[in-house]
Amino acid sequence: MKRKACAEVGIKSFDVDLPEQVSEADLVEKVHELNANPDVHGILVQLPLPKHINEENVLSEISIEKDVDGFHPLNIGKLAMKGREPLFQPCTPKGCLELLHRSGISIKGKRAVVVGRSNIVGLPVSLLLMKADATVTIVHSHTHNPESIIREADIVIAAAGQAMMIKGDWIKPGAAVIDVGTNAVDDPTKKSGYRLVGDVDFQEACKVAGWVTPVPGGVGPMTVAMLLKNTLDGAKRKIEQ
Amino acid sequence: MKRKACAEVGIKSFDVDLPEQVSEADLVEKVHELNANPDVHGILVQLPLPKHINEENVLSEISIEKDVDGFHPLNIGKLAMKGREPLFQPCTPKGCLELLHRSGISIKGKRAVVVGRSNIVGLPVSLLLMKADATVTIVHSHTHNPESIIREADIVIAAAGQAMMIKGDWIKPGAAVIDVGTNAVDDPTKKSGYRLVGDVDFQEACKVAGWVTPVPGGVGPMTVAMLLKNTLDGAKRKIEQ
Repeated sequence: MKRKACAEVGIKSFDVDLPEQVSEADLVEKVHELNANPDVHGILVQLPLPKHINEENVLSEISIEKDVDGFHPLNIGKLAMKGREPLFQPCTPKGCLELLHRSGISIKGKRAVVVGRSNIVGLPVSLLLMKADATVTIVHSHTHNPESIIREADIVIAAAGQAMMIKGDWIKPGAAVIDVGTNAVDDPTKKSGYRLVGDVDFQEACKVAGWVTPVPGGVGPMTVAMLLKNTLDGAKRKIEQ
Repeated sequence: MKRKACAEVGIKSFDVDLPEQVSEADLVEKVHELNANPDVHGILVQLPLPKHINEENVLSEISIEKDVDGFHPLNIGKLAMKGREPLFQPCTPKGCLELLHRSGISIKGKRAVVVGRSNIVGLPVSLLLMKADATVTIVHSHTHNPESIIREADIVIAAAGQAMMIKGDWIKPGAAVIDVGTNAVDDPTKKSGYRLVGDVDFQEACKVAGWVTPVPGGVGPMTVAMLLKNTLDGAKRKIEQ
């Protein structure tokens, strides 16, 4: 999907396919090559990596100027800190905020609840919402009575990876609900034997929420769009230097 | 206070006093000298800096191995991220968690409310509490009805810098209240004309809270202790290399 989107907008993309047994040193060397290649403005390391490779070691080798995923800890640190700006915001969180902005939903002073605290979505989207002056609560697997907390939210970001865990009566009437979950559930009526659902019970949520994103087709395409935007921004920054 | 504490435990400390008109380049050069000095295991840049100096530029020059304040964005990023550990945790947040641990207060699954979102206290203490599996809400100047949110908290970290803003009836009975605020208020009965108070109305809080730290004498000494601990840890790490 990312490759196709690149082609559509005129960004050249290419894969570097490495065997599963590749050593960490060889993978890092490949990252260094891409760092040094002036024709490359964005580098993605496809996760998860094989078990024998330390993800942290590899990701931290990506040049901060080409870290279009925005996962480098230096980027996350700057995302978190007041008065600092990362070179790139992580794509899915950035897409969530873009969806809110484009839908005319104000964030400042609103109660926002983020369900899930992953490095890829939950954590960075919490930090972005806080920077946008929302009052943020992060709900996770150790939270007691998540429904009572979610029910107070004007903005819900569901990123727990739990199929349809958020029911209609967990949602405050009129709330904006962004569903980041993508979960496969058995469905014998489908040829594949499964279908994709979000973390939110979409049918129920539609009756209560002011806004709700579908799965698939909601946040997913926004993530890809933000990846392209980050890559373009990175290229512009390089050219302007 | 920091100098005295160092002397008490046998850590050598020294000041590098620079004139207020010092250039950013000269200050950064001084930081580089200390980075390169093998006898130095911890470097603090005393904030705030004069207006003509960019704080971010200076702080990011401190060697990550000697950043005993833990304010480097790379440290904050690793503090925020699941599965990552910073070399140093910021001293005041670390002290807050130490106070909770030493008082036998469990954090996992508890509702924690952090009042304030500064880079020095509010933000990093929120991240530490989240890593310790609390359900964390960050309250700040744009939060509506902060009292209703604080009233749900089992753990309150007050770091807003607003004298006695948190009243007794804002506190859940039995809650643990850590008061990080240090505010000077007029007091004609004092020779100095002022006294120091926290962000919490201590007299009222004592009647409701299960635990509450005084100001002064609560978090302040813990911050200094954690700074010494960070410095010792940094020195040990260096020696073990």
